[in-house]
This record gives sequence, structure tokens and C-alpha cells, in this order.
Amino acid sequence: MARDRAVTVALDGYGTEQGFGVLAQGARLAAADGIGVRVFGPRRALGLDGVDGIEVVETAERIGNEEDPVAAVRAKKEASVVRAAGDVAAGSSAALVSCGSTGATMAAATFGLRRLKGVQRPALAAQVPVPGKPVLFLDVGANVEVRAQHLVQFAFLGAAFSAAVLEVEDPSVGLLTVGEESGKGREEVVEAHRLLAAAPGIRFAGNVEGRDLPAARVDVVVTDGFTGNVSLKLLEGTAKTVAAAVGDAARSNPVAAVGGLLLRPALDGLRRELHPDTTGGAILLGLRGIAVVGHGSSGAEGIANAVGLAARCAEVDAVGRTAALLAEGGAGRGALAAGGDA
Amino acid sequence: MARDRAVTVALDGYGTEQGFGVLAQGARLAAADGIGVRVFGPRRALGLDGVDGIEVVETAERIGNEEDPVAAVRAKKEASVVRAAGDVAAGSSAALVSCGSTGATMAAATFGLRRLKGVQRPALAAQVPVPGKPVLFLDVGANVEVRAQHLVQFAFLGAAFSAAVLEVEDPSVGLLTVGEESGKGREEVVEAHRLLAAAPGIRFAGNVEGRDLPAARVDVVVTDGFTGNVSLKLLEGTAKTVAAAVGDAARSNPVAAVGGLLLRPALDGLRRELHPDTTGGAILLGLRGIAVVGHGSSGAEGIANAVGLAARCAEVDAVGRTAALLAEGGAGRGALAAGGDA
Repeated sequence: MARDRAVTVALDGYGTEQGFGVLAQGARLAAADGIGVRVFGPRRALGLDGVDGIEVVETAERIGNEEDPVAAVRAKKEASVVRAAGDVAAGSSAALVSCGSTGATMAAATFGLRRLKGVQRPALAAQVPVPGKPVLFLDVGANVEVRAQHLVQFAFLGAAFSAAVLEVEDPSVGLLTVGEESGKGREEVVEAHRLLAAAPGIRFAGNVEGRDLPAARVDVVVTDGFTGNVSLKLLEGTAKTVAAAVGDAARSNPVAAVGGLLLRPALDGLRRELHPDTTGGAILLGLRGIAVVGHGSSGAEGIANAVGLAARCAEVDAVGRTAALLAEGGAGRGALAAGGDA
Repeated sequence: MARDRAVTVALDGYGTEQGFGVLAQGARLAAADGIGVRVFGPRRALGLDGVDGIEVVETAERIGNEEDPVAAVRAKKEASVVRAAGDVAAGSSAALVSCGSTGATMAAATFGLRRLKGVQRPALAAQVPVPGKPVLFLDVGANVEVRAQHLVQFAFLGAAFSAAVLEVEDPSVGLLTVGEESGKGREEVVEAHRLLAAAPGIRFAGNVEGRDLPAARVDVVVTDGFTGNVSLKLLEGTAKTVAAAVGDAARSNPVAAVGGLLLRPALDGLRRELHPDTTGGAILLGLRGIAVVGHGSSGAEGIANAVGLAARCAEVDAVGRTAALLAEGGAGRGALAAGGDA
């Protein structure tokens, strides 16, 4: 039984581009790590019956990438991601994980788990896979258009999560734009800079530029969901391209090949550090429950890491601590309340 | 005399973060490549008197990064970048190059060289330093906020430049956004997709995502100047970070160190390919003259490459050919004319 475990995670059993075998293997890996997993999907195809720590909840409906997320979540009450979100809302699981449609997962989580008091727009936050210190980056896709006040909220949500879950002490927060000076960027970014510079209760490091993200100059980087989504995919793509080019270089001649062979163990660690699967996916911040959105292309390890990230969030009571940090003093509350409901 | 050479380039002699010595060395390298260089800057500090192919035009005023570009260009008629732009407008040089303030260079070029007929907004285009086939990416910073019609113009400007100067046959153009489907992204992006999909005379490849840029899936990628600027700096930063991490891996233990040594010649080529200095900077498209904006951090080689890029644009008559391609058939002209003047 999944619920014998300290933490139980609800996993969308249709959420995979790699097939049910890979998803099932991811669930097995997570269960082997001591996490209880309730998988919402097709029992027969998953073949997980009797696996210790895993429980399959038969679910025959799915939401695909091609569907309108909000409409599909509203219409398909029996869809795997909707039922998994409901499982968390009902308290049977502590967190939702899906590597399926990002839009559907966000919609199911937002409807099913509801927003924290004062939060206008939940934001999707990802740990950027750069060497060394990871950077929490948000919004990476929940809101393609934002107002200044939303960016301010993202800053507080990111800082609270970074402190509560990632154990960064007094995290610094940067605002992503096109120049260091406070007047640089779109109108809403310039206004957000002004608000954040004046806000107590947050360590605002000012503007950061694209190059500061891989350089990990701050702990949290805030932007709108359009720029964030493009940037995260660009960063992952560039890391992959450069890593592949290093591999090509190592195959370019016999001497280089020997060099590549000797260097391989050291490079494997780097490759692992840079691989999107390693961080386990993005977390939807600002809700009354935990929801993790994994990569659709996740392998078994990526799925297991997404479940592991969700379990870790539950173990440290990420939601409660984020809410407490937001409410602490007037700062967070003020910032969250200022804009009213969207 | 600089004007003995086949092509003469006007170089902003104050445009460098690395000091006059580096700038002068860049000018020497360019002159050694057969390019005539007219340097607008402080004669004594540059120390270029008597160098074959170089002419120094004594200029004592400069525009710094901290100044408001448009106001400074309007006020400082004797500033080096303004005089260099004037030199091109007067026909004494064939192209403008500055590695100084991007904003000031764009303003000096736009005022001094004027826009091509029908072009509403000049755009800054950069060749993305990715392994293998380079991608032309625009706008990387001229317009932080755009309308759909501007994105359509950027697509035509980029395709024309790619064909005329980069010699790409029938270049494919992608629109950068958060998903492959036509409905994905900000309002102006969705509208631009609709316009481009219906536009004759351009090979529109549809939406591309962040990961498609380093993967070089298309020849030209179009976006607004905010997303483009963040993305380009992010890409350059990530390539640098990953390259540095490979170096660290090669120093992590003695066996890896030997591997790194054997691999070094092959990796040096890659490092060179990825270095921002290699492409020589960004080109301001849509003007009646050639203007190249180099990196402020450019070394001597970067400055020489920026001058070389400008000279190449002049040699192939980039402006004339771009204008002709834009006017060819109804397509380009239609797309450019549709929005009227901004």
C-alpha cells in the first residue's frame, strides 16, 4: 500500500511521452526510495500491481498536449491528472506529479488545490540546471503576460520557496531584464523594479541579465512566463548542444578520443548536473497544495526525481512554510495584498 | 590612408571597455586584413598614427553607457559615434562600427543613416554562436516592446539579410515562442504567426521554442528585443559556463587532466566557435547604411571581427540587396507597407 509510507505522492499515470513502461519504472524507482506512489492510470498497461509502496488507481481517461488545458480539465472529471489533483485535495496524497501536458497539470492543480490567500497568479518555478549552485527561476510558463504586481508576487513566492525548501538563507532575488540600470526593460519590469526596491522583507538584488542566470549571481530570478519559458528551454538546449559538441570534439581524432575517454568520468558528472531530468521538474508556487510538473520527455530517472522533489516539498511542509514566510511581517502580505485579486 | 582600401569602415574610437590599447590593436588587425579603418577618437591615446590603412580623425567627445542614448546623440554632435555615423552618411566610410553603448550606436545610426523605405523599426540582428550552422537572431535589443507587424518586418529583414550577406538560399524563418502550436504565446506573437503564415515571399517555418535556437532548426529566428536580448546573453553565458565547467572537470583529477590535455586542441576550436567575439557583433537591419554593434567587452580580435563583418556587409552591398529583396514581388513590400509608419 502506497499510504504505508511517510509521504505519498499522486502520479499522473498517463503523463509520459516515453510510454507506460518508462513511467512505471519511474514509479518503481521512487517507491524504492521509500516514497508511497499512487499512480492514476491504466492498471494493465502499467503492470505495477503488487509492487511494494505503489498503488494503482484505475483511470481510463487522459488529457493530451493538443487539448485546450482549461476546457479539458473542466470537462474531463475522470482524466488522470484531474483525479490525481483531487486525491491531493482530499488528503489521500501529499503532492501531485505529472509529466504530461503542462497546461493541464497547472489547470488541474489550480482548480483542485486552490490559491494561497492573496496570491493572484500561481507561478511555475524551476531549478535551473547550471553547474554549482542551482538558481530558482520563475515564472517558466504559467503566465505569458504579467503586470508589475505579478512580478513582485513571484519574487516573494520564489524567495519563500528558496528559503523553506531549498534551505537558502536569506535568498537574493534578481529581476530579469535587458540591462543593469533600473530603467531598463519593458514597462511592467521597470515598475516591478521600483516596487521591489522599496519592499521590505525581501533581499532584492536589482536587475539581472541573461548571462547572470547561468552564472548563478543570485538565488532567485524572476521574470514573466513567456521570457522564462523561452529562457529555460534555451538554457537546457544550449547546455545539451555544447555537451554534444564536446563529445564530437572527443571523436574528432584519435588523440582527442583518448583524451575524451580519460575525461569521461569527470564529464559524466557534469552531464548529469546539466541534464533537465536531474532537477525533477518545475513546481507550481502559490497554491494550497504541492504540484510538480515534470518534463514530458522525462526518462524513468526524471520521473522518479519529479516524485522525489514533490515528496521533499511535502516533508518540509513547503506550502505551510511558504504561506508563513509570505505572511511574516507586513512585507510579504503587503506585496501580495497590494494588487487585489486578478 | 584608410581610403586607399577597397572598403573603409568608420570605427568609434571610444567604444571599448578594454581601453584604447585593445581598440587600437583591433584596428591594426582589421587593417592588416586589407580593410581601411577611419578611427574617431583621441589621436594620442590611440597611438595609430602612420599605421598603413588606418586614419585617425581626432575626436574628443564620447557617449558613455550611463547616458540616455537618444538625448546624448542629439546633444553631442562631436561625440565619436555620432561623427563616425556622419562619416558613413557623407560617404567617406562604407560602414559604422562601435563596441560602445549599444543604445547610442543604434540612435546615432538611426538618426544618421535613416531607415529604409517602409521599415518602421530597425532591428538588431546577431549571429548566434552555436556549433555548426549559425542562426541569425533578431531583434536582440533595439525594441523592447513590439507589435505583431514589427515581428513580421523583422522576419522579412532577417530573411533578406540571411540571403544577401550570409548566402543562405531561401532561408527558413521561425517565430520564437512558448510552444509549437500556432496559438501559443503573447497576443502579438499569435497575431504575427497568423500574418507570417499567410505572407507570400517568405519561408515561414512556424513557431520555434528556446531549445530550437541552439539546435539551429531554422536559419532565422524572430522575437521582440526584450526576449531576444535576454536570450542572446543567456545563450552566451550558458556556453561560457558549460565550457568553464568542462575545464574544471579536466582539472578534477590527474587522469582527467591528461584527458583534458589530449582533448584541448579539439576543444579550442569549439571554444572559439562559441565565443561571442567570433561573430563580430550585431547588425542593425532596416537602415540605409551599415551599422555593426560589437560587444563592449570585445578583445582586439572581437573588434577586428566587428570591423570585418561591417566590411563584408559593404562589399556585398547588404543594404542595396536587402532593400531589393524586400521590394521584390509584392510580399516584402506588402508586409512592410501594411503597418504604415510607426
